[in-house]
Formats: sequence, structure tokens, C-alpha cells
Amino acid sequence: MKKDFIKACLREKPDRVPVWFMRQAGRYIPEYLELRKKYSMRELVKNPELSAKITLMPFKYLDLDAAILFSDLLVILWGFGIDFEWGKGEGPFVKDKKIESFSLMPFNFLKKEIEILKKELDVPLIGFTSAPFTLLSYLIEGRFQRDFPETRKFIYKKSLEWHDLMEKISHGIAEFLKFQADSGCDALMLFDSWAGALSTEVYSKMIFPYTQKIFKSIEGKIRIYFSVASTHLITIINGYSCEVIGVDWRVPLHFAIDFLGKEHAVQGNLDPAILFSNFDMIKKELDKIKDVRRGINGFIFNLGHGILPGTPIDNLKKIIQEVHTWQI
Amino acid sequence: MKKDFIKACLREKPDRVPVWFMRQAGRYIPEYLELRKKYSMRELVKNPELSAKITLMPFKYLDLDAAILFSDLLVILWGFGIDFEWGKGEGPFVKDKKIESFSLMPFNFLKKEIEILKKELDVPLIGFTSAPFTLLSYLIEGRFQRDFPETRKFIYKKSLEWHDLMEKISHGIAEFLKFQADSGCDALMLFDSWAGALSTEVYSKMIFPYTQKIFKSIEGKIRIYFSVASTHLITIINGYSCEVIGVDWRVPLHFAIDFLGKEHAVQGNLDPAILFSNFDMIKKELDKIKDVRRGINGFIFNLGHGILPGTPIDNLKKIIQEVHTWQI
Repeated sequence: MKKDFIKACLREKPDRVPVWFMRQAGRYIPEYLELRKKYSMRELVKNPELSAKITLMPFKYLDLDAAILFSDLLVILWGFGIDFEWGKGEGPFVKDKKIESFSLMPFNFLKKEIEILKKELDVPLIGFTSAPFTLLSYLIEGRFQRDFPETRKFIYKKSLEWHDLMEKISHGIAEFLKFQADSGCDALMLFDSWAGALSTEVYSKMIFPYTQKIFKSIEGKIRIYFSVASTHLITIINGYSCEVIGVDWRVPLHFAIDFLGKEHAVQGNLDPAILFSNFDMIKKELDKIKDVRRGINGFIFNLGHGILPGTPIDNLKKIIQEVHTWQI
Repeated sequence: MKKDFIKACLREKPDRVPVWFMRQAGRYIPEYLELRKKYSMRELVKNPELSAKITLMPFKYLDLDAAILFSDLLVILWGFGIDFEWGKGEGPFVKDKKIESFSLMPFNFLKKEIEILKKELDVPLIGFTSAPFTLLSYLIEGRFQRDFPETRKFIYKKSLEWHDLMEKISHGIAEFLKFQADSGCDALMLFDSWAGALSTEVYSKMIFPYTQKIFKSIEGKIRIYFSVASTHLITIINGYSCEVIGVDWRVPLHFAIDFLGKEHAVQGNLDPAILFSNFDMIKKELDKIKDVRRGINGFIFNLGHGILPGTPIDNLKKIIQEVHTWQI
């Protein structure tokens, strides 16, 4: 029988509104913070037993409707023969920039993580990686840069080379997602964290066709697209052949549901910053979401971005309890 | 007789489409880079003769229709008894956070800079400072942070304190803008560089009323509002009582003109990253802008954000020459 999360992805009526949180396996869980004292990110990510353990950690506290692999957006780079470092506080950075043709060889650890999880989990498992624009931005800039000026210069100045690189990278991303599905993942998510830096015209010509090709190459799987600060791109994003579109807190949810909801399930979008307030305050925001999504099968409750470090677990718990009481 | 820039701000027909560039007095000018070897930012900003000299530097190369004070968004903090440092590469950072009541005492150097410039300049002079949200974000975060999580937490968790601080800061900003106008500035611009981090609801309740109050308190002056990555806020921004709204490259210009153009002049919005391409490529983008703004009195040509370091002066020169040939 289909689980609620899968039903909502397919816009079929779930029994309860499904809930999961981006970065649910992360820095707000005491057991995770303990592990991080002993192991580096690289050690955790490459160790299938530990990764699986971390993926399962939030389930000790939270009645979540989906799990997401503990991994990293940039892990896929290893398939292109590129390494990267996890920086302190500023996010990961990439030193190498020479792209080799994509190989699945380095990803045995991930296959094993998925296999362990499929035995343990009672809810669907989400696999993921970086969308092509965000991945290529990392390669060009080396790390997060406000508004990604070098990437934008590159797109305008070396547009042919850009197309070549996007082609190459998109091929690898499609392979990597297929591999995750074949290994047992029930849904596949592309994170386009930096897409919001681009104009509508550039996104539509230089990005959309590649991301779309990836989605088309994994038709039949459950496909999720998530981007940040990209309200200005929403008419283009609406064209993606994917089941679910995730939105951040910048997009008014009623607009997302009206606009994207005709052909997609919508996932989002409570501001993760509000989780540091008392629950009365949070409840007011939940009530708004409750009203807006009423009658919509294709709604998956999530935050507008990842859980922030230090978020009180108790608020997450109460949110799930509350959302699970909602009538569809 | 009114200059073209002023006419366009007031949506009266200018003789030529006026052009100026954000950060036109900056890091792409050889003479400026020379000065920076000898003086710190603090020394330059606090020295009225040197600041005036830098403000005038681009006019050696470029036939610009407006000048903008060489200063910094955070200089206003000195009026609140707060100091800040110019960081290397990462932008300025604020250590102090205790806000005193606003005083114009520290700004004699600015008055003098404006007086020198008014004697030298043949075009209107733009004064500016930070919009209240961006300024308060700096105080809360200390420096630029992706998506400003601490500021968002603060808004939700301490909303009463937020309103108090915004009230205090907005009062100072209004005083500071009046002071710049009284000293001789012809137009006043508020930079809301970080506004895009907020949801429409939060922006509308927690930010808009304060920025609007500032604009209303300087009615009769030429007022410009500029924000970045804020397309999702455009219906709210359209409510500002100001003459000009500046948009970044994310906003399609035809949309900005259709939507904002009914009650505002529109300023923008070529992506500054394109200036590193050859002029043929730039010309194609200019032609699009030329068509979109045809028939519009209230259009001021600018970039979608500041000139990037290392931008070829020659491309800036050619852009101005080209835009100045356009029929209104």
C-alpha cells in the first residue's frame, strides 16, 4: 500500500498530511552532535553504517513521513573525479575543477547506506543531489558567493563552454539519481540552492533545458525540485516534468498552490527561523498553512529550507503532531 | 532647467535617457585603486576632499547623468554611536550593537563633501544610506549572512523589540537623509540590499511601514528605493511613496515597467556580470532594454546592482554612448 508521502507526491489523497523536514538528519539532534565530535563529515558520509544511523536518528524523536539520505549535495563530484572539503561554517568548497566523465565507481558506500535503510525504514526514502546549475556554480566559484558573480560572468562570456559543461554534468546527475533509485530510494530530489541568482531569461535558456532533461530521463520515478529565493523563476519552474515542487518561505503558499498546484504537488514552506519562537507563535503560522492547503491532496508539509542548527526538537515534534491532525 | 536625470525621476520627458551606475565611483577605476593603496576606506570616507575627488573620478571617463556620493551604507551607524570595520573581501562588519539616539554631529565631513561636489558637478548629486531593514540586519548579524537567519529569528521571537529598534533606526535614517538634502543632494536613495531574505508577509508587516514613514517624512525630495532579489516583494514595494524604484536583473524589465511604472520611474537593470563580455553581446541586451522602455519617460538606465571590480571601463563608455542615442 502506498505511504502518505508517496500519495501526496502523486496528488492522491493521503490519510494524513505527510511531514518531513529538510536537514532532518542534522545539527539539532544531540546524538548527531556527539558523533560529529568523533568523526569528520567525510568519515560520516563515506561510512554506510554511520550514515544510515544518522538518517534514522530523527525518528527517535519525530513521527516523520519520509526519510532523506544523510549525505551531501556535493558527494556527486566524486563521480566526476573531483574532491571537495567541508569548510567550517562557510559551507563546502571545491578546489579541483577538472571534470572527468562520470563514474558510479566511488558510490558503493551510498548503495550500502540505502540497502541498510530500506531494511530499517517504515517510510519512503528520498535520495538527492545537487541540480546542475548549483553544482556548476560550485565548480566555478569554489564555494558559496553572494549572487555568484563568476558564474554569471561565465554564462555570458563563455556560453558555448557553459552548455558543454551543463550537458556533461546533467548526464552524471541523471546517472547518479538512477543509481539511487535502483539501490532502493523511493523518491529523488534535486536541490537548486543557488538558482535564484539568475534572471528569468538566463535561467530559462541556460538552466531549464538541462534540469528538465534530467527529470525526463528518470520518468516514472517520484521527482522533486527545490530551489531557494527563486519566486521570479516560478513560471519557468512550473514547466518541470516532476511530481513535486518545493518552495521556500519567500513564496506565499497560496500562490504556490494556485500556480504550481495544477500539475505538481507542492512541498513547503514554513520559515525555519520561526522554530526558535514559542509554539503559540508557530501555531498561528501553522493555522495559516492549514487553511491555505485545505482540499489539496498534493501538499507535503516541510520547512522553507533546512532545519537551522540548535532548533528545539520539541517544536518540531509539536508541529508534526499538529499537522497530522489536519483534515485533507 | 531640470537635468535629464531629474526629469526622468519625475516621469517628465528627458532629452536623453539618463544613465548612471551603482558603484560608479569604485574599484574599476585605476586612479581609485591607486588611492586605495595609500589610504584605508575609513580615511577615504572621512576625508571630504578625497571623497569628493573619488565621486568625480568616473566623470573623467564616462558621460554620466548623475553622481552619487562616495561613502558607505553603514556610515550612518556613526550617528547612532556605533562603529564598524571594512572587512577584506567579505564586506563590512559591525561589532558594537548598542544603539544611542541619533546625532548628526559626526557628519561634518559629509556636509563638506557635498558642498565641494555641488561646486564641481554639472549633474545632479545622489545622497544615500541603508534602508532600515538592511541596517538592522547588519546590527543583528554583524555582517552579511546568507538568508540572515539571526535577523529572521529575531523578527519572529522578539517582535516588540524589533518594532522599537525599527522605529529608532528609521527616525535616524530620515534625519540623515534630510541632512544630505539640506547639504545639497538633489536625490536621496535607500539601499535595501538584504530585503529579499524575507517572506511577503513579514516584509509587509515588519519592514514596509518603517521604510514608508521615512519616505513620507522627506516628501518633496526625489526619493529612490532599491532592493535586491526581491521580486516576490514587488507588490508591496510598489506601494512606496517614492519617485523611483530600482530593480535588479532578476526582475524582467517589461514586468517592472508595466507593474511599477504606473506610479514610479523605474531604474535598472542590466546584469553587471555581462560587462565582462564583448560589446556585441552587451549590445544585444541593450537592444532588448531599448525596446522595452520605449515611450517611457520615467526610465533611468542603470545596472541591476553595483559595478563589479575589474569591469572594463570601455564597455561602460560604450553603453552610455549607445543609451544616449535612444529615442524616448
